[in-house]
Amino acid sequence: AETKKIAVIAGDGIGPEVVGEAIKVIRKIEELYEYNFEFQHGLFGGIAIDEKGTPLPQETLEICQNADAVLLGAVGGPKWDNNSKELRPETGLLGIRKALGLFSNIRPATVFDCLKDASTLKPEVLEGTDLIVVRELTGGIYFGEKFRREGANGEEAVDTCVYNVQEIERIVRQAFEIAMTRSKRLASVDKANVLETSRLWREVVNRIAPEYPEVELEHVLVDNCAMQLLRRPSSFDVIVTENMFGDILSDEAAMLTGSIGMLSSASLGEGSFGLYEPVHGSAPDIAGQGISNPIATVLSVALMFRLTFGYADAAQAIEDAVKEVLDAGHRTGDIAVDKSKAIGTEAMGELIVNAI
Amino acid sequence: AETKKIAVIAGDGIGPEVVGEAIKVIRKIEELYEYNFEFQHGLFGGIAIDEKGTPLPQETLEICQNADAVLLGAVGGPKWDNNSKELRPETGLLGIRKALGLFSNIRPATVFDCLKDASTLKPEVLEGTDLIVVRELTGGIYFGEKFRREGANGEEAVDTCVYNVQEIERIVRQAFEIAMTRSKRLASVDKANVLETSRLWREVVNRIAPEYPEVELEHVLVDNCAMQLLRRPSSFDVIVTENMFGDILSDEAAMLTGSIGMLSSASLGEGSFGLYEPVHGSAPDIAGQGISNPIATVLSVALMFRLTFGYADAAQAIEDAVKEVLDAGHRTGDIAVDKSKAIGTEAMGELIVNAI
Ligand SMILES: CC(C)[C@H](C(=O)O)[C@@H](O)C(=O)O
Ligand SMILES: CC(C)[C@H](C(=O)O)[C@@H](O)C(=O)O
Repeated sequence: AETKKIAVIAGDGIGPEVVGEAIKVIRKIEELYEYNFEFQHGLFGGIAIDEKGTPLPQETLEICQNADAVLLGAVGGPKWDNNSKELRPETGLLGIRKALGLFSNIRPATVFDCLKDASTLKPEVLEGTDLIVVRELTGGIYFGEKFRREGANGEEAVDTCVYNVQEIERIVRQAFEIAMTRSKRLASVDKANVLETSRLWREVVNRIAPEYPEVELEHVLVDNCAMQLLRRPSSFDVIVTENMFGDILSDEAAMLTGSIGMLSSASLGEGSFGLYEPVHGSAPDIAGQGISNPIATVLSVALMFRLTFGYADAAQAIEDAVKEVLDAGHRTGDIAVDKSKAIGTEAMGELIVNAI
Repeated sequence: AETKKIAVIAGDGIGPEVVGEAIKVIRKIEELYEYNFEFQHGLFGGIAIDEKGTPLPQETLEICQNADAVLLGAVGGPKWDNNSKELRPETGLLGIRKALGLFSNIRPATVFDCLKDASTLKPEVLEGTDLIVVRELTGGIYFGEKFRREGANGEEAVDTCVYNVQEIERIVRQAFEIAMTRSKRLASVDKANVLETSRLWREVVNRIAPEYPEVELEHVLVDNCAMQLLRRPSSFDVIVTENMFGDILSDEAAMLTGSIGMLSSASLGEGSFGLYEPVHGSAPDIAGQGISNPIATVLSVALMFRLTFGYADAAQAIEDAVKEVLDAGHRTGDIAVDKSKAIGTEAMGELIVNAI
């Protein structure tokens, strides 16, 4: 098969460690299947600030633009937290999303059997929970005009939330498509009783809904959704929402599964291009100790294979291998009940590679 | 003592039923203490739309402005959900907050012993949870300019989020003051890594913090807060945040206590004036059946006595009476384990009145 180009952005903290194991997994797939991959490494986030003076060097952006998919570790850390805006890792993150046109962030909130007890929710409430948050990623208050000005009551700050019909249509349509491949239930989350952008959002959702008559649609206000996720998590299938609400709700949903160290995510644009990353952050407190959990990153590779390359067989092989290793009782420290038996990042990576 | 004027806004759904019982409680306090109250009733919300053609009639606003405090039942219902903006109950709610200058919404998220098991969280996680969300209520994206316009990619909608220094100062100072009366821990929630209003918010918080050296302050990003509320609810004492984040987080916090049918709230302005209401909504599905739970409204009266009138003795008497009735095993349907033994709204009201 044609060689697929993967841009690899290890980033900060535990990013390089977990990405290292994910690459071993990709190499193993290359051995076993007729697929071929080529890696291009780029600096991004804090390390890019340190070495290049900017969180998103032009060079890194070009590597991503020339690739078929991007594998991202994690970015950020206390070292850069008090930098000025242009010198912060987050600014690179927003920049890369916009530059690559990644308008959709897909966050599956899956409960892993072996981690059921790690949730703070009661097991019977969690039972059957398997939802996906589809978050709009390049619009809204994240990217609207922001500024300071002198007002009648002293200094004021302004953020602007803007959505146009086309931006809403493409993310909503994608959410309906995803719902069609699952349980065909879609919750569209907005604050239509207060926000004009939410009223437009709801109009567009209602206009598109008849194209998907099989999908059961509900509109949920964002405050109510924050409650319902706690009360009846298993009743949700696909949740679609705008950027800021999606930021909050996808993290809430991830946390309630108890499996946050295991969750992968995809950020997609037009076509098959995508950026894949674990949901957990750069965890600077445990970086460099070789104890981080590579599973979320490995599962991000599986997601990449499935969504960008259409290599469903290889994706399945990776997911099965992870399951096998977990079923055999192997755990990194973050998910181990008996911490004394925890294994390290490389040991976990090797077990998964061998299980494929 | 001087007669206190209470504006009573029963509103829609179960509003009139629960307010009816709260008034009986106030009358009982009048009998037992030297306090005197005068009620003025006003139409508000859906019923005001039906009878006066507007959710917030001028007359109602004047009743509130002439009162020392407002007791609100609940507003809204499916009947008015598809009305145009000016004819929706929520518009009245936003209008009354602004007109009365109620810039602060205080939402205690308390776990009631008898309802511990009603939470979807594990009891050991919930243990010790007792937090207050202080939400800015008259600024931010709720009240900024909103409009539609024709953009390069078709129709677009715009919402504007604005905060000035003075608006942030007064709510933050109030939150510090509340923290001083409690465990002296304050979490200020923002999205300073993305929003300009949040950066101003954080600057103001950091500027005020040295005035309260005893208060332990942490800054928490809103997405992280949505997670931490689930992971370590008992670690929070006072949470202060802007309007939209407060809407979402206060509902999440309320739901995780499992006690949402019992929670009261206060909306405060400058001075001692305040509007008090139960956190639960108008519950149109059970309205008119006499089965709603009046406790959250009764406890809202206690909050009014404490915060607006400074009648700590009467407030305590009400809270003790509620506790006594619950300890004796009496339950309305929403909180009854054995639904067949549930009592109605009036019976619950009477028990509380007799226990005072
Ligand atoms: C780091 C931050 C800018 C980012 C966001 O808010 O989008 C993060 O929270 C995320 O969800 O990817
Ligand atoms: C009804 C709605 C406008 C309101 C709000 O968002 O403020 C409600 O959710 C609340 O929290 O009081």
